[in-house]
Amino acid sequence: MADSLDLVNRDPNSLNDHLKVQFEDVFGEPEGARSIDCVWKLSYTCFNCWLGLCYKLATLFYGICIAAEWGCEFAMIAFYHIWYITPMLRVCEINCAVFKKLMETCMGCCLTPCCEACGGFFIYFKK
Amino acid sequence: MADSLDLVNRDPNSLNDHLKVQFEDVFGEPEGARSIDCVWKLSYTCFNCWLGLCYKLATLFYGICIAAEWGCEFAMIAFYHIWYITPMLRVCEINCAVFKKLMETCMGCCLTPCCEACGGFFIYFKK
Amino acid sequence: MADSLDLVNRDPNSLNDHLKVQFEDVFGEPEGARSIDCVWKLSYTCFNCWLGLCYKLATLFYGICIAAEWGCEFAMIAFYHIWYITPMLRVCEINCAVFKKLMETCMGCCLTPCCEACGGFFIYFKK
Amino acid sequence: MADSLDLVNRDPNSLNDHLKVQFEDVFGEPEGARSIDCVWKLSYTCFNCWLGLCYKLATLFYGICIAAEWGCEFAMIAFYHIWYITPMLRVCEINCAVFKKLMETCMGCCLTPCCEACGGFFIYFKK
Amino acid sequence: MADSLDLVNRDPNSLNDHLKVQFEDVFGEPEGARSIDCVWKLSYTCFNCWLGLCYKLATLFYGICIAAEWGCEFAMIAFYHIWYITPMLRVCEINCAVFKKLMETCMGCCLTPCCEACGGFFIYFKK
Repeated sequence: MADSLDLVNRDPNSLNDHLKVQFEDVFGEPEGARSIDCVWKLSYTCFNCWLGLCYKLATLFYGICIAAEWGCEFAMIAFYHIWYITPMLRVCEINCAVFKKLMETCMGCCLTPCCEACGGFFIYFKK
Repeated sequence: MADSLDLVNRDPNSLNDHLKVQFEDVFGEPEGARSIDCVWKLSYTCFNCWLGLCYKLATLFYGICIAAEWGCEFAMIAFYHIWYITPMLRVCEINCAVFKKLMETCMGCCLTPCCEACGGFFIYFKK
Repeated sequence: MADSLDLVNRDPNSLNDHLKVQFEDVFGEPEGARSIDCVWKLSYTCFNCWLGLCYKLATLFYGICIAAEWGCEFAMIAFYHIWYITPMLRVCEINCAVFKKLMETCMGCCLTPCCEACGGFFIYFKK
Repeated sequence: MADSLDLVNRDPNSLNDHLKVQFEDVFGEPEGARSIDCVWKLSYTCFNCWLGLCYKLATLFYGICIAAEWGCEFAMIAFYHIWYITPMLRVCEINCAVFKKLMETCMGCCLTPCCEACGGFFIYFKK
Repeated sequence: MADSLDLVNRDPNSLNDHLKVQFEDVFGEPEGARSIDCVWKLSYTCFNCWLGLCYKLATLFYGICIAAEWGCEFAMIAFYHIWYITPMLRVCEINCAVFKKLMETCMGCCLTPCCEACGGFFIYFKK
């Protein structure tokens, strides 16, 4: 089942593109302010190690449970939408279609003649 | 009766296209934050299992009853609209058609001459 | 008398096209949320059975009476419109036609010269 | 006298085209909501029978009297319009024609120069 | 004297074209609402008989007197207009023509420069 999963590009729908957490996205020394080379290298290594370690541990302990939980949640949402909300929306659409016809008839007989009569104000713009 | 039912594409009218509940629509790891491969795979499997299980159980227990219930509901709506609302709308249209003629006659003799006279204000726009 | 009735296309004037009450118009499962095949099939069958049953029973018991009732109603409406409202509308039109001539004469001699004189304000828009 | 009457097309001037009272104009079953064939046929027959019966009885009892009454009414209206209103309208038109000449002269010498001078405001719109 | 009178077309100037009082202009049965043939024929006959009778009687008794009265009235109107109003209008026109020249000169030197200067407001509309 999980064979079809793409392990390289893990965000095909670009959901979390705003999460820029790499070293280059966070640190940068401009011209004129330069730390010692080895300090900069060590900072880079430290940042990446701790980022990877913390994230991997957190996902190891909690990731799978959270995924299962969200599975149930989305199943309920899907069920609720498919079997309850969508049909109700259809009922609403049917009633609104009738109300729309009624409104069109009323407006057509009350408002249109007035507006067309007042339109005589612009008689000289006729082409 | 159910033989004509398309079991592959179950939403030919795109009613629930807004329901994006697949793993790729919900989770995504950007560059720089990567969990261990087997954790990611297991999350994927868990999410899909629980999603499928919950949804299948819910539909198994409630789906058929809900479908039957909506069947009755829509039968009543259809009956009410066909035999009551549509004829009433026709009566309304007939009366409005007369009222519209009356309005057009009145507006045509009261408002139109005034507006056309005032329209002389724009005499230089005549083409 | 009823021989000329088209039993296949029962809505030649598209009066109730807004009534979309078929299974495909109400239910639809998107990608990712799929119920068991037999559940989906059974839902389809149940929905259609109950829809058909309820509607057929309702029309069987009430349809014919309602049709007869609307027949009387529309006969009265037609009689009232043909023999009373339309001639009265004609009287109204005759009087309005005279009143319109009077209005046009009055407006033409009082309002039009003023407005046309004020129209000189737009002399540079002359084409 | 009544020999020249067209008994087939009884509304040559389309006075009552808004009166759509046939079965197809009032009832219509869309796809998915179908009553039993014989119910639909019987509804059609009932609607037409009652519509015809009520209308025919009403016209039989009242139609001829109403026609005679409208005959007198329209004779009076015609007499009043031809011998009184139309000549009075002519008097009114004669007086208004003089008043219009006077208004045009006055407005032409008082208001037009002012407005045309103010029209200089739009000098850059000159074409 | 009355030999030159056209007895066929009695409204050569279309004064009373708005008077539509024939049976076809007042009554009309649309599709679906049909009275019995003899009722419709009798209605036609009744309407025409009463219309003709009433109008003929009214004109017989009052027509000639009314015509004589209007003759006197229009003679007075014509006399008054020809010998009094038209010459007075000429006097008025002569005076107004002078006043108009004066106004144009005054406005042309007072108001036009101001307005054309303010017209700079719309300099970017220049074409």
